[in-house]
Amino acid sequence: MITSIQNNRVKEWRKLSTKKGRLQTDLFLVEGMHLIEEALKSEWEIKEIILKEDKVLPTACTGLPATSVSNQVFHSISQTNSPQGIIAIIAMQEQDITYSNGDLLLIDAVQDPGNLGTMIRTADAAGFSAVLLGRGTVDLYNDKVIRATQGSLFHIPLYTVDLLEEMKAIKKAGYSVWATALENATLYHETPVGNQTALLVGNEGAGVDQELIAESDQVVHIPIYGKAESLNVSVATGILMYYLKG
Amino acid sequence: MITSIQNNRVKEWRKLSTKKGRLQTDLFLVEGMHLIEEALKSEWEIKEIILKEDKVLPTACTGLPATSVSNQVFHSISQTNSPQGIIAIIAMQEQDITYSNGDLLLIDAVQDPGNLGTMIRTADAAGFSAVLLGRGTVDLYNDKVIRATQGSLFHIPLYTVDLLEEMKAIKKAGYSVWATALENATLYHETPVGNQTALLVGNEGAGVDQELIAESDQVVHIPIYGKAESLNVSVATGILMYYLKG
Repeated sequence: MITSIQNNRVKEWRKLSTKKGRLQTDLFLVEGMHLIEEALKSEWEIKEIILKEDKVLPTACTGLPATSVSNQVFHSISQTNSPQGIIAIIAMQEQDITYSNGDLLLIDAVQDPGNLGTMIRTADAAGFSAVLLGRGTVDLYNDKVIRATQGSLFHIPLYTVDLLEEMKAIKKAGYSVWATALENATLYHETPVGNQTALLVGNEGAGVDQELIAESDQVVHIPIYGKAESLNVSVATGILMYYLKG
Repeated sequence: MITSIQNNRVKEWRKLSTKKGRLQTDLFLVEGMHLIEEALKSEWEIKEIILKEDKVLPTACTGLPATSVSNQVFHSISQTNSPQGIIAIIAMQEQDITYSNGDLLLIDAVQDPGNLGTMIRTADAAGFSAVLLGRGTVDLYNDKVIRATQGSLFHIPLYTVDLLEEMKAIKKAGYSVWATALENATLYHETPVGNQTALLVGNEGAGVDQELIAESDQVVHIPIYGKAESLNVSVATGILMYYLKG
């Protein structure tokens, strides 16, 4: 059992709580048994398991390298307020983009981790085929993003791309790109839905970048009937994704 | 200017960060100019303004009683990490329920403040006529709820009720109650929409209470096409509210 927070392996694990540390190693942390089970069901590779001293390795994790650590060490690595006592170190997956059938979600510069995670979860639920993250978007491997995905990050292909460049390929592949905006936009439920749609949503405050809107095939908006100024971006994205699937 | 955190008024203000303190006084705190502007546009009564020492009273607040406090005092009252330096004390409104035209949102035991606030914001945006909060729901005047509403709590009537009792009156008033559930439910987009709908959504983990489901006219669910186990409750509620309005 590791009992020193100065231990070198502990220092390495702790670095994974920063984006820099994750990018240097292509590894990230996932906490709690529900998320680890979702990873086990997927193609993602779990490198090792870290257990708090009073925990035993769950049967589902049999065969994985596991290390016990003291309470103090565990809390120095954990990023939750009430940790469940189990953390997995998982290898990032870099896949080449392929466009199969099915709608795409394109995310431009969404900043709130809870919003991004929820959007990935909803894209999975709605049966979208992939999520493309523009470079200005919050880091996918942020612990709050991972928690909000509820495991969907292991189930739907996710790509980090330059959206402006990638949109050319998407349009060539036969997709109709729907950007969301408040101005110069048609009502979403009066916009004809084509065969395959790439839905493009944007930053919580600024919306979708103007350059990207200029490259879109349709610009749509969700009507506001009351006094609210706007919808939360993950709610708006959910409404549009389910509309497109309906 | 008040400079002591032991000052009696400061102690009273600080009590408003707890549910108990709010219920004893029928007052609550709202932070930041955007939310205060939304309150000013509404019928809600702002009792007073608290300003951090380096802030001047905004023109929009002219005529309201205002008190300057030291940085230390302000931070002892503020519930945000990066406070904007202005807080309003607002009186709770207890209204008698009236059912006008328009759809209703019924919320049973939602626990996450961000979810509840987002649902109120979306109900306002979707033009619903009121939101009814079951008694097991997180406190409406929690600061995180208020922030997530983005001011919509001042714009749409909100009632805290016993849902089981209130549903009788709702049905008498001609509403069709749609409960959401994963089992024994029809697909929402294959369920006939009546004239006026009361949409009933439930707790993040347990869903809608079985007793309430038994009293509902329709039980609907949103299909999951991918590997996600469920949708976030505020996203699901948004999808259904906009479907009902469409």
